[in-house]
Amino acid sequence: MSDSVTEEFKKDRLETLEVDDELRLLWRSGEISRFNFIWLRDNARDAKNFDARSHQRRVYTAGLDPEIRPESARLESAGVCIKWPDMTDEVSYPVSFLHQYGFDQPSVQEVVETWGADLEAPKMAYSTLRDRQGFLLESIRRYGMAIISGCPKEPAAVTEIAERLGYIRQTIFGDVWSFEADAARDDSAYSTEGLRPHTDGSFSFDPPGIQILLCLENVASGAESILVDGFHVAAALCRDQSDVFNDLCEIPITGIYKGDGVLLRADHPVFRVKDGRVCQVCFNNYDRDIMRLPDEQMLRMYQGIRVVDSMFNDRANQWRYTLAAGEALVFDNWRVLHGRTAYKGRRK
Amino acid sequence: MSDSVTEEFKKDRLETLEVDDELRLLWRSGEISRFNFIWLRDNARDAKNFDARSHQRRVYTAGLDPEIRPESARLESAGVCIKWPDMTDEVSYPVSFLHQYGFDQPSVQEVVETWGADLEAPKMAYSTLRDRQGFLLESIRRYGMAIISGCPKEPAAVTEIAERLGYIRQTIFGDVWSFEADAARDDSAYSTEGLRPHTDGSFSFDPPGIQILLCLENVASGAESILVDGFHVAAALCRDQSDVFNDLCEIPITGIYKGDGVLLRADHPVFRVKDGRVCQVCFNNYDRDIMRLPDEQMLRMYQGIRVVDSMFNDRANQWRYTLAAGEALVFDNWRVLHGRTAYKGRRK
Repeated sequence: MSDSVTEEFKKDRLETLEVDDELRLLWRSGEISRFNFIWLRDNARDAKNFDARSHQRRVYTAGLDPEIRPESARLESAGVCIKWPDMTDEVSYPVSFLHQYGFDQPSVQEVVETWGADLEAPKMAYSTLRDRQGFLLESIRRYGMAIISGCPKEPAAVTEIAERLGYIRQTIFGDVWSFEADAARDDSAYSTEGLRPHTDGSFSFDPPGIQILLCLENVASGAESILVDGFHVAAALCRDQSDVFNDLCEIPITGIYKGDGVLLRADHPVFRVKDGRVCQVCFNNYDRDIMRLPDEQMLRMYQGIRVVDSMFNDRANQWRYTLAAGEALVFDNWRVLHGRTAYKGRRK
Repeated sequence: MSDSVTEEFKKDRLETLEVDDELRLLWRSGEISRFNFIWLRDNARDAKNFDARSHQRRVYTAGLDPEIRPESARLESAGVCIKWPDMTDEVSYPVSFLHQYGFDQPSVQEVVETWGADLEAPKMAYSTLRDRQGFLLESIRRYGMAIISGCPKEPAAVTEIAERLGYIRQTIFGDVWSFEADAARDDSAYSTEGLRPHTDGSFSFDPPGIQILLCLENVASGAESILVDGFHVAAALCRDQSDVFNDLCEIPITGIYKGDGVLLRADHPVFRVKDGRVCQVCFNNYDRDIMRLPDEQMLRMYQGIRVVDSMFNDRANQWRYTLAAGEALVFDNWRVLHGRTAYKGRRK
């Protein structure tokens, strides 16, 4: 609980308690909190019902009487004490707990700023990584990306950045790896061709989240990095062509990876919506499998791809940047599509 | 393409081709295949449109004319040749390709055998891992589990088994690790208590798939492993109490992990359905977060948990087995819940 919430409930003490078919608390502010008995019983946080060290529930919820009622409930300065029929000791529910769960949770509307070509990309120096971890996290949360300059030109720098963010996920490609143009590899990432904006891992049940691209060497011409904010495109599409947007939220598109002795396939809609907001963008036309859909759905899929991929490839939606050696691009692969222009020369 | 399909289309050659608002093929069998133009153009597999080595699409699908029509289309012994208005050369579509995508795909109804207490668990010897990889994969696909006996009593054996199955995923706990009762750790897995059946990683967006538990040492009494087939329980519930089943497919339940400096939280319904079949089971009452849902939905959630967790804890649905040192339990954590009885003594 944050300090401000603590301060708030200190001012807002409990006045009275009523128990009939639910437990009601009247706060000094005049507001009322309502609690269901089975919910209170399930969330008893005494040692028998909850392991405070592991933060794990102990109670066998399925074994509770769904009609359970308190034998007694009394107000105390510290909160509410309840005697349940299936327990020997009273359970106390602190004021802070009752306050936290007694009101509609303030919906933490996360500030997400969508962007197009004119993004002023958040940048930070590698040397400040430890002190400014919050800046990095906030940049990724808000913009879906950040640039880190002055990195050591070695893969270990990627590991160091990654460890500020979480743990490193294994993929079919390994965990941390470097690549350059390599005709021996079965993926277009290893070519010098331009790559239209796409997300990675559309062939995987769980496409990677945060990705880090560190430029180790750039003596090439071309090779601009291209980033597109998928949430920005989704919002525009939802506003201007909601039918197409809805199709792209519904029609599953199959990604496929075939090569290096591996065959992976998975379905994702272009936009995954949760609680009324787009939470995941998944689009990779390179890796789209041959799919047979019913005629009508297939035509809607093609229309959707035509519209949305034109937007992904519209310069107005593309932020472009040429990475220098020692610069790392950190981006949220669930939100931001990435690509690059073609290049000549060496780049790693 | 499998050999049997190859044989099939060899017998079933093309007779005639019609082009009006679609392309139709009449096969010698009398059957007709219909192909939409945009689909055919998108799936042209010549070098300009498709990279045969990386198996990746090159064509910029969004740039294709949705009203595209062939300039010409002709039957050849090898298949169909089409001249598209936006291409210089003809594209050929082999008979095998036209056959593969010209008919409704035979729905590969995977044989899944659900089970209860009387499961005859598939077993194999560690020494046969290389030769009988197919048996291991088929056992997991069919039963969601397998036992491997005679493993070296060291974590490297887990890595060896895992590499027969895919790549090893990193989690907050690392990749391969050993544990025994350890009061210093923030998770009930490290205690000697019994653990009711649960799936792992309900607090993660992407709970682990196949898990491997290798018994390194067992000089304990108790410590029976308990496995429950979530698909079996889902089928029974869907049949007998479809309202409860539907609730459990819909109500998102929040898992939480808090400890060791980490806070993770994610929502999953107990049963995730795809294409009319349960494809993922996610239930861990230990790690269920305190959640406020609208009253009516909350009561349905508690009813759902009461019903389904009673089934998970019903001995008739539990396959029980005491692992000996050197035995590994491999199971699909998207299907099979695992638990254990309490124990005394040392177990690793």
